[in-house]
Amino acid sequence: MNLTDGLFGDAELSAAMDAPAAIAAMLTVEAALARVQGRLGVISAEAARRIDAAAGELTPDPASLMDAVAQAGIPAQAVVGALKAACPDEADWVHFGATSQDIQDSALILQLRAALRVIEARLVTLDRALTAKARDFAEQPIAARTRFQIAAPTTLGAKIAVWRAPLRRHLQRLEQLRPRLLTVSLHGAAGTGAALGQRMQPVRAALAAELGLGAHDVPWHAARDAVVELGGWLALVTGSLGKIGADLILLGQSEIAEVQAGRGGGSSTMPQKSNPVAAEALVTLARLNAGAVGMLHQAMVHAQERDGSALGIEWQTLPQMVVRTGAALRLAGELAQTLRPDADRIDAGFAADRGAMLAEAAGFHLTADMPRAAALDIVRQALAQLASGQAATLAEALAGLAPDRDWAAILAPERNTGDAAAQARS
Amino acid sequence: MNLTDGLFGDAELSAAMDAPAAIAAMLTVEAALARVQGRLGVISAEAARRIDAAAGELTPDPASLMDAVAQAGIPAQAVVGALKAACPDEADWVHFGATSQDIQDSALILQLRAALRVIEARLVTLDRALTAKARDFAEQPIAARTRFQIAAPTTLGAKIAVWRAPLRRHLQRLEQLRPRLLTVSLHGAAGTGAALGQRMQPVRAALAAELGLGAHDVPWHAARDAVVELGGWLALVTGSLGKIGADLILLGQSEIAEVQAGRGGGSSTMPQKSNPVAAEALVTLARLNAGAVGMLHQAMVHAQERDGSALGIEWQTLPQMVVRTGAALRLAGELAQTLRPDADRIDAGFAADRGAMLAEAAGFHLTADMPRAAALDIVRQALAQLASGQAATLAEALAGLAPDRDWAAILAPERNTGDAAAQARS
Amino acid sequence: MNLTDGLFGDAELSAAMDAPAAIAAMLTVEAALARVQGRLGVISAEAARRIDAAAGELTPDPASLMDAVAQAGIPAQAVVGALKAACPDEADWVHFGATSQDIQDSALILQLRAALRVIEARLVTLDRALTAKARDFAEQPIAARTRFQIAAPTTLGAKIAVWRAPLRRHLQRLEQLRPRLLTVSLHGAAGTGAALGQRMQPVRAALAAELGLGAHDVPWHAARDAVVELGGWLALVTGSLGKIGADLILLGQSEIAEVQAGRGGGSSTMPQKSNPVAAEALVTLARLNAGAVGMLHQAMVHAQERDGSALGIEWQTLPQMVVRTGAALRLAGELAQTLRPDADRIDAGFAADRGAMLAEAAGFHLTADMPRAAALDIVRQALAQLASGQAATLAEALAGLAPDRDWAAILAPERNTGDAAAQARS
Amino acid sequence: MNLTDGLFGDAELSAAMDAPAAIAAMLTVEAALARVQGRLGVISAEAARRIDAAAGELTPDPASLMDAVAQAGIPAQAVVGALKAACPDEADWVHFGATSQDIQDSALILQLRAALRVIEARLVTLDRALTAKARDFAEQPIAARTRFQIAAPTTLGAKIAVWRAPLRRHLQRLEQLRPRLLTVSLHGAAGTGAALGQRMQPVRAALAAELGLGAHDVPWHAARDAVVELGGWLALVTGSLGKIGADLILLGQSEIAEVQAGRGGGSSTMPQKSNPVAAEALVTLARLNAGAVGMLHQAMVHAQERDGSALGIEWQTLPQMVVRTGAALRLAGELAQTLRPDADRIDAGFAADRGAMLAEAAGFHLTADMPRAAALDIVRQALAQLASGQAATLAEALAGLAPDRDWAAILAPERNTGDAAAQARS
Repeated sequence: MNLTDGLFGDAELSAAMDAPAAIAAMLTVEAALARVQGRLGVISAEAARRIDAAAGELTPDPASLMDAVAQAGIPAQAVVGALKAACPDEADWVHFGATSQDIQDSALILQLRAALRVIEARLVTLDRALTAKARDFAEQPIAARTRFQIAAPTTLGAKIAVWRAPLRRHLQRLEQLRPRLLTVSLHGAAGTGAALGQRMQPVRAALAAELGLGAHDVPWHAARDAVVELGGWLALVTGSLGKIGADLILLGQSEIAEVQAGRGGGSSTMPQKSNPVAAEALVTLARLNAGAVGMLHQAMVHAQERDGSALGIEWQTLPQMVVRTGAALRLAGELAQTLRPDADRIDAGFAADRGAMLAEAAGFHLTADMPRAAALDIVRQALAQLASGQAATLAEALAGLAPDRDWAAILAPERNTGDAAAQARS
Repeated sequence: MNLTDGLFGDAELSAAMDAPAAIAAMLTVEAALARVQGRLGVISAEAARRIDAAAGELTPDPASLMDAVAQAGIPAQAVVGALKAACPDEADWVHFGATSQDIQDSALILQLRAALRVIEARLVTLDRALTAKARDFAEQPIAARTRFQIAAPTTLGAKIAVWRAPLRRHLQRLEQLRPRLLTVSLHGAAGTGAALGQRMQPVRAALAAELGLGAHDVPWHAARDAVVELGGWLALVTGSLGKIGADLILLGQSEIAEVQAGRGGGSSTMPQKSNPVAAEALVTLARLNAGAVGMLHQAMVHAQERDGSALGIEWQTLPQMVVRTGAALRLAGELAQTLRPDADRIDAGFAADRGAMLAEAAGFHLTADMPRAAALDIVRQALAQLASGQAATLAEALAGLAPDRDWAAILAPERNTGDAAAQARS
Repeated sequence: MNLTDGLFGDAELSAAMDAPAAIAAMLTVEAALARVQGRLGVISAEAARRIDAAAGELTPDPASLMDAVAQAGIPAQAVVGALKAACPDEADWVHFGATSQDIQDSALILQLRAALRVIEARLVTLDRALTAKARDFAEQPIAARTRFQIAAPTTLGAKIAVWRAPLRRHLQRLEQLRPRLLTVSLHGAAGTGAALGQRMQPVRAALAAELGLGAHDVPWHAARDAVVELGGWLALVTGSLGKIGADLILLGQSEIAEVQAGRGGGSSTMPQKSNPVAAEALVTLARLNAGAVGMLHQAMVHAQERDGSALGIEWQTLPQMVVRTGAALRLAGELAQTLRPDADRIDAGFAADRGAMLAEAAGFHLTADMPRAAALDIVRQALAQLASGQAATLAEALAGLAPDRDWAAILAPERNTGDAAAQARS
Repeated sequence: MNLTDGLFGDAELSAAMDAPAAIAAMLTVEAALARVQGRLGVISAEAARRIDAAAGELTPDPASLMDAVAQAGIPAQAVVGALKAACPDEADWVHFGATSQDIQDSALILQLRAALRVIEARLVTLDRALTAKARDFAEQPIAARTRFQIAAPTTLGAKIAVWRAPLRRHLQRLEQLRPRLLTVSLHGAAGTGAALGQRMQPVRAALAAELGLGAHDVPWHAARDAVVELGGWLALVTGSLGKIGADLILLGQSEIAEVQAGRGGGSSTMPQKSNPVAAEALVTLARLNAGAVGMLHQAMVHAQERDGSALGIEWQTLPQMVVRTGAALRLAGELAQTLRPDADRIDAGFAADRGAMLAEAAGFHLTADMPRAAALDIVRQALAQLASGQAATLAEALAGLAPDRDWAAILAPERNTGDAAAQARS
């Protein structure tokens, strides 16, 4: 246990990926295998019934299996051992024709399916929350900042639209990757299904149906692209949320403080502080998953028909990535719900900028009725006056250089946000 | 230049991603922008014509732009500068309403589109070559090895089928990610298109059509999921090829030498050696891209409306990943073309194993007409005789323990490969 | 909990790095701070006594602090809160003048100091075990293999010497990095020690002495090089052990089986198999720590005087790296203790090679009394005869081409191992 | 070539690491080997003289070697081939007793030695520049910011001291790692030196002396800790510089703008902008090297006596890391030289904070003559007045709550910077 797991962890996703869930999923697979083998006459109906019943009742203490797992180098083998011990008369028919990795991987897929439902639901909820906030603040002007410099006006809704757009793409990606990922494994020791001969394929199809999964004809024991693709997807999600976190940190700086979200963490010694704990955690989680996806890809160099070194990388990397994604979605959800602009601070920011961020807009405005070169020249002069203090605002400077225009109105931030509001409402 | 670029690099993909190609792509985007703006009346037809012409003729020496790029922190700005210098009279209408990143990103997409065509073609070619080889050797028995131990018989075709299966999934993934990736960027400095007002959306649509790309309503200046997704895809591809490399290395070891592919590199001092240079390079490229995808994901934490730190990560990572993927496909293609089993070595391997790898098969065979426990007990006894030297082969041991069966035939590797041949032909 | 933690985890190191240990270490620091502040008159002797006593008795349930940690974004703050609650009358003098990160980091250092003692002891033990094995097998000939091809003879002891050599360098590195790492942190909220004014420096020096640590004048709140350096060291250690694992996997393959170590994991379906579980785990742990060190380095981009995003990366990465290093040393220790060659298999390997690996040696031998070109020509002819089956062994071929020499003796592997035995005994 | 190499690359370090330098270094090693072998009578004096001469004159076009390198899988082999072709009469005595990797690695070390001299010199220069700046601004008050919130006053000199402190530790680390790294490799094909028998050790010692390097008795062909350690060191350096970059970016934000450094990059559309191009590049380089060090550590899992897959990782990773470190030092040097505070903006920042950042200081001040609880209570009340607008500054609020103290003076930032100035001058 790590003291920061309350922040970087997630109880619901941890429960989906941890040892008891893994054991339960493996027993679910073994029970389903026995049932379909009983039904297809591969094992006796009685054996099937008893194995199914034993698997349904078995809840071994994970700690009790640890030594066996360490010895075998694969959890499924220890679980199979426990199941055989639980129905000794049918022990020979438990796990019949399967190899440990078949069970290990099929169970992993069941765990991931459940975890992905939670993650998808949170993603949808977050999308909705951000969609609502984007609409609420569709027209709230705020400075766009590029490369850490004030650039030009946009709206808070448009900023949120940029956060939200990838979430929808992530949902689409998830839809596309699910059929590749959610497949049963049942191919036997050498991947040929030789143990069951002609019956392996029908048993596999029936097992897949029983578990609500797809099936591949060619074993994926050693072709791990679907699992690693999922890791990449998780890191894409946390990456997008990390961008939200980075933006909220920067928007919430003492000197800017234009947008607040969540409840800040206090300081042990500085009572006035409100630390952006959740936003920082989004960045942390994004960077951790970014690193982890690089680790996970190393597992694709999977030797031969089974490579324990490579499998171990998956086992020690993917569950954490799932949990981190859940944590990031939980934190982002809290931030989205509570996000609010501070209009006074935003106004003060525009005032402090004195119109400099409208320089580009002024240039385009002037270009409408004079040569562009002349227009840009006027803007440059106006900026120079602003910089030297000769003019208090860009509007004032321009009023002298290009009179007879209502520069205050022309350069009002809210009139220079292009299609920001439309993006926010899209 | 690195002396090993002949191995780990790729001339065709390098040419698609390097500086001259980037400059050409940026000029293509600027020319297309001018043309559509001329057509839509945003700039004059004359300005459009001249900019288009100037862009078409311009081939600046990349070295001459380096300083400007380093100063601006974004290549597009230097290219825009060169284009303005090339048509000074229309300089004010060059790049009109766009921001540097619009051009940078749109050009990147054009480069990636071209690179992906090459990569896809090589992937299809490799798939075909492996499909042919899988069929050729669909029934060639060979040992499956799990966790670096001989497991049970399979066929060489089935091994190749496992290599090939992910390639087809990669092609499907590519098809799915292309619409997300192949989009133009044209959103202006703050992402709002404010410079062109109501005309930005139609200009963007027209530019997209002109370049044969899609378009997003919400800017992806700071939402980099599609670019990073591509990086993940590239690493998936090289990961799958790295698995082929690892398998070929192991199958080609002096002590196994059951499969050869490519021409081996000689040793400077050991004339008898044939090093698996290309296969090793596949592993190297897989591990490099695995690490690189982790680096690239860091770029998703992209602050504000534009973050030069994050963009720099993409610029310095993605082109290499593309090149590495091309190199890996080139090398894998060469290996696939020349792959051939050494049937004598394979037979010798089966002989040396003395039938131990058929122990599981023997157990399943006996289970057909006796209690499974009894069957497994006989197998255990047979293996013990094998280990102690009492029997020369498992078949001989079983003949004593369970007589009246043609054990040599029953345990012949080629009769114990399940649906391996079917997988190979799938 | 992860089912594979019995393999990839380590109980002793986990206990050093987990939540209860972290809490205890933080309370140790707070108690020591109170004592030295009492002694120096910064707080009253009575307050010091009570805080020290309260800290000594406090063992809060980590789970009870999780929420507070998640809220504060830094564990120390929750622990300080618990300590204040435990001695309410002196609450104002608890943590006096310190900032949360001072306690967090100082406690981390105490934990790491303890963990490094365990790790160092295991490293020394492993070095001794390997030294003993290297001596035992200093003269046991065995094939050197380069690029997965048989190269030339060496001895098993020399192989082990290559495994051992970096361990000694790691011990030297540890000695060198310790003074940089094992320092107290006590610099206050802004790193200036302003809260305690002139008394901060003496308090820090006294606290360092009390805890047996060093101290830096300039705060390391935001300069994380020593922590990240440690991560690099841990990954160097697991990397060296991963090399041992890779070698043992390859030497233990069914077709080679020249060296065995540890007890192999069985297969659920293939009774004859003995999987190299521990050796594979060494590779896994090396690759996990390799990836993790890349993640950890990201934490060096630590913004301002304190950056929660960056700290979170450390908190979620370093403890796992410590545990993995402990696990790898434990597994490597078990493998080292049980390592033994199979001389029959080694002899069979030499026989199967038919002397080809001695080609280089033959060339050097002939060079002694003929032009080198002539010598190499003879060797090439001999290899050709070997390849075509004209000669059964290289010695036989050479006997025909360069007669009157005792080629069997000249090419005996044990006479062609250079200074392998000397390396093994070094 | 990449258009951004002017920013992220470095001409001097590239020249040290690129193909011509690698070839030259390999020829230097071969020449030195021939000279010492001539001197020790291993080869004839005449052969030695001719090889030395040929190596000295040979400057093969790297492009001409690329194919041979790709074929051999190791650059040294192609260079040896070129050298043999250049002195055909002595070809048999070129590279006598060495293996390709001996030359490859020894040459790498020569290249790294030269590169490290450049890097060290830049590190020393940067340390001096920062030391000077830290002194210049030792007493310039500025806000410390923790977790992106204003915390308490410090000085700019103290900030710079935090940047500089790790540089000195890096110089110490470099001193310590050099003897481990700067060693010759000469161990022959199997690492046993068998080719030269008893003469290998003296030849190695003489070669080491000739090249000014150390030597290990046990080969490091497959024990890559020193090379990977160097990668870690490079990433530590760029990580420390990335922290400087992050701080300069944040300090240079439009809304803060308290410190400027370097010349900013302009925007193509927003003339008022000054982008922190160099500071952003420092962050990029830090993150790239962070990722790269994770890749490089994968190379430690180096199989057998030589592993081409693992070597390839080094070859494709380390040179870039060296170049990035050089680039980062160059950019940091430019930033350090030009760093200057904007005292007006700093003062405006303090004014805008209205004293809130002195809350901790006020508490400690009051604690001097009242119970700490009472002191903290007063501070809390004062902060509440500040927040509600009842008081314009913390000093004003405190004047009402705890009168008869000169709160303006007590809370003056410059009087509340603890030992910041001392740190700056350390």
